[in-house]
Amino acid sequence: MKLVKNAIGRLVPTEVNGEKQIPFQGVNKYKPEGFKHAPKIPSNVDYPLNGDKRVANLKEALIKAGLRDGMTISTHHHFRNGDLIANQIFDIAKELGVKNLRWFPSASFPCHEHLIQYLEDGTINRIEGSMNGALGRFCSEGKMKGTAILRSHGGRYQAVQDGEVKIDIAVIGAACADSFGNANGLYGQSASGLLGFALADSQYADKVIVVTDNMVEFPCVPWQIQGNYVDFTVEMDKVGIPEKIISGTTKITKSPDRLLLAEMTAKFCDVTGIIRDGFSFQTGAGGTSLSVSMYFAEVMRERGIKARFARGGSNKYLVQMLEEGLIDYILDGQTFDLEGVRSMAENNNHVWTSPFTSYNFHSKGNFAGMVDVVILGATEVDVNFNANVVTHSDGLLLHGIGGWQNCLYSKTVILPLPLFRDRIPVIRDEVTTVCGPGELIDVIVTERGIAINPKRTDLIEKAKNSGLPIKTIQELKDEAEEICGKPEKIEFSDEIVALIKWVDGTVIDAVRKVK
Amino acid sequence: MKLVKNAIGRLVPTEVNGEKQIPFQGVNKYKPEGFKHAPKIPSNVDYPLNGDKRVANLKEALIKAGLRDGMTISTHHHFRNGDLIANQIFDIAKELGVKNLRWFPSASFPCHEHLIQYLEDGTINRIEGSMNGALGRFCSEGKMKGTAILRSHGGRYQAVQDGEVKIDIAVIGAACADSFGNANGLYGQSASGLLGFALADSQYADKVIVVTDNMVEFPCVPWQIQGNYVDFTVEMDKVGIPEKIISGTTKITKSPDRLLLAEMTAKFCDVTGIIRDGFSFQTGAGGTSLSVSMYFAEVMRERGIKARFARGGSNKYLVQMLEEGLIDYILDGQTFDLEGVRSMAENNNHVWTSPFTSYNFHSKGNFAGMVDVVILGATEVDVNFNANVVTHSDGLLLHGIGGWQNCLYSKTVILPLPLFRDRIPVIRDEVTTVCGPGELIDVIVTERGIAINPKRTDLIEKAKNSGLPIKTIQELKDEAEEICGKPEKIEFSDEIVALIKWVDGTVIDAVRKVK
Repeated sequence: MKLVKNAIGRLVPTEVNGEKQIPFQGVNKYKPEGFKHAPKIPSNVDYPLNGDKRVANLKEALIKAGLRDGMTISTHHHFRNGDLIANQIFDIAKELGVKNLRWFPSASFPCHEHLIQYLEDGTINRIEGSMNGALGRFCSEGKMKGTAILRSHGGRYQAVQDGEVKIDIAVIGAACADSFGNANGLYGQSASGLLGFALADSQYADKVIVVTDNMVEFPCVPWQIQGNYVDFTVEMDKVGIPEKIISGTTKITKSPDRLLLAEMTAKFCDVTGIIRDGFSFQTGAGGTSLSVSMYFAEVMRERGIKARFARGGSNKYLVQMLEEGLIDYILDGQTFDLEGVRSMAENNNHVWTSPFTSYNFHSKGNFAGMVDVVILGATEVDVNFNANVVTHSDGLLLHGIGGWQNCLYSKTVILPLPLFRDRIPVIRDEVTTVCGPGELIDVIVTERGIAINPKRTDLIEKAKNSGLPIKTIQELKDEAEEICGKPEKIEFSDEIVALIKWVDGTVIDAVRKVK
Repeated sequence: MKLVKNAIGRLVPTEVNGEKQIPFQGVNKYKPEGFKHAPKIPSNVDYPLNGDKRVANLKEALIKAGLRDGMTISTHHHFRNGDLIANQIFDIAKELGVKNLRWFPSASFPCHEHLIQYLEDGTINRIEGSMNGALGRFCSEGKMKGTAILRSHGGRYQAVQDGEVKIDIAVIGAACADSFGNANGLYGQSASGLLGFALADSQYADKVIVVTDNMVEFPCVPWQIQGNYVDFTVEMDKVGIPEKIISGTTKITKSPDRLLLAEMTAKFCDVTGIIRDGFSFQTGAGGTSLSVSMYFAEVMRERGIKARFARGGSNKYLVQMLEEGLIDYILDGQTFDLEGVRSMAENNNHVWTSPFTSYNFHSKGNFAGMVDVVILGATEVDVNFNANVVTHSDGLLLHGIGGWQNCLYSKTVILPLPLFRDRIPVIRDEVTTVCGPGELIDVIVTERGIAINPKRTDLIEKAKNSGLPIKTIQELKDEAEEICGKPEKIEFSDEIVALIKWVDGTVIDAVRKVK
């Protein structure tokens, strides 16, 4: 395996899984040549004129779709830890004796631990997508036959659009669908809100199967997935476990440490003028982020101002803000609770978006750059503001990238982080894995001080006399190390188990097998 | 020019405008090989990070888009006869000395007569799209430099998708847009309802310009056109003349002849069981069609049944039916009046569709085949049920195809037609131009009798004892000729001025220059 040092100083391979890789060339440095992936031209002649594409079951659909060795099978993660589809697909593949598949989920969850047996026996060659929990550990330990590739939500759309990943069969689970294949995530026992993570799959896959437990008469409206892209539809009893799809209760943190981080973050946004009439923000569904939104809401109420839009992941707090008139629009990528689903179904100002509209870097612009401030998490940050979101400081690959990399293009990126976790400092000389280049990360908020990227002289100036504890990132690192000691270096083997792609499809880092 | 006889017996050229043509091979006989058109991969690097793609004016946008000799420029016809964009584009082209353009509108209207000067002076080489009125006459007289090509709405999507027509610059006029290029036709002085006819253009054109007289702050919701496909946005005072965009008052016919046709059509649908609970229909905005809908509504009210969906062109009568609960959904391709626009903006069951969802024959099915009955017009029908919708019996090319060909795939196709117009019989031995193969046309309703296609033995059986005047098409033709005399044959020159494409991109007929 030939390694080269990429633009951010990481040694990355120029080829994995028999496919050429382009090393990261710097932010905004790489420009694609060539053309979007061109699917075969289908013809209505090959589809039932009455629009009814139902087949008896998933197995029949997979057989009709031509499932065979070496194919790429995609799924989406709107059902999260309640997904019942992906495991079935590979049970069927195993039964049919199909080998060497590439699984290309938009994300995987603990419920997919079931698939480890198929990674072991060669049914699945590798996963390209996030691997939370047991699958991540399996990969980190070098047990996966192929090399994993992790992409952001936008990077996944980009990879499919650009033909980097050619999907042979996409299986799209939907809370609601018609026999033609029009589908949405809004209605039914497995409601998940939207299906945007399956959009690229529907548009570019060779064969598309829609699976639902709520088959309605044509037309299924709205059609978040368009039946015109769909080959087969399948009705089954249950596509997901409702209580695991949606938490039902998204909760604001009660941890005093996290509340402090949230308050400092909100205050920072306030003193620097980020919170203003017509501003926009994206937080997340984590406790700290939610709390930041709540602080934003308080400020907006006090001042009588409102936000033009908030980007989701939506949840009941964001919905309340929309309904209270504090936000004109929620531009939502996924709903995290049932209130989000309800609002999206009822309120035209709660808009479903997709990785294409929001995050695709190989389009004529996307929404990320229009967001005034995003509040994100990270497992580690280094003194150059480079951040890690996939591996822990013990080297284990336990998280996906999600929309994290894509959001770095927002006008101001703030990472509220505890200074240490389990007595391990979060600010390091070097992060274990670089997921985001420091030049795109503006502010680190910790309980012991706020570090502003020296590039953001405007923010430094504005925060100067705010009374907020502004420090350099080196100071924060030193403080953490004074308390916890200098963290030991983890030992890795040379073997590369996963690549981390940047939003433009280049390789920003590689993850090595833990010893 | 080499001519071959196609599967429906018409002599068509194998090449026009330097491009190879495939002769019509029969209904459902031709299957495309190859891949969809693959646009260049763009990169966010080349677009403003804040999403603001505004340029000063249309001229600047066209220059930035690289307007030059021989390009293909597309526009849409949602502004109908009130369009102010297309003429400006070619005024600018003329000013810049650009020559030999292909204009690729989704349809042209009398307001575009202004462009004849540019067809004469070589600014425009040819029009590929419908040519109503003066432009049609100009073409029929052999005055256009290139050969016109007419496509159905679905055929236009197909041609763009398949790369048959590569659009260099698409100019999309929108009633409402943001600076990023998200756009809809719902709000503003130039509201036209939707923008579906520009969908293919936005997805596949090399450069896309959105022009609006109602620039709103991001996000413009809903985004019927996605800004992620857009290169430049332009604000101007007026993109259309409202009273010419939308009639404001769609009117039911008061003509006793047409009312009779409508009544006979509705009665036919009733006795043959087409009107049933959960059925679906598509009429049009013409007087006769509107009246058919009204009869349908009466029957549904009487029986206490409803339609699952109606396909638009929508109008106030269809909206009333939706609001009365006689229809579950309107699946709309274009709104013909302001009530249609209002309903689409307010009512989520009034759904905007596109030529992709409804009509594209080179997709994995479309909506047309799911419609129980469509009521269409025609200029002529022949004894084999082949029909013409583009030329008059005097040979002049005066109409476009619209969605007409696409609708022929519906379960039952009925053409209510007067037996003669201006003492010229409508039923002929041979139509002047074949637009639709007779095997897809089921019923001809005239004031003197109803002819059922012999292929539809089911309908013949059901109509048998209905009291309706069922006749053969030959009988109807004979009756007309008894009254009006046998029509004289028109003389054409050999010169081909236009091709008529079938829904699969093959050439079903050619239109010759009138003598």
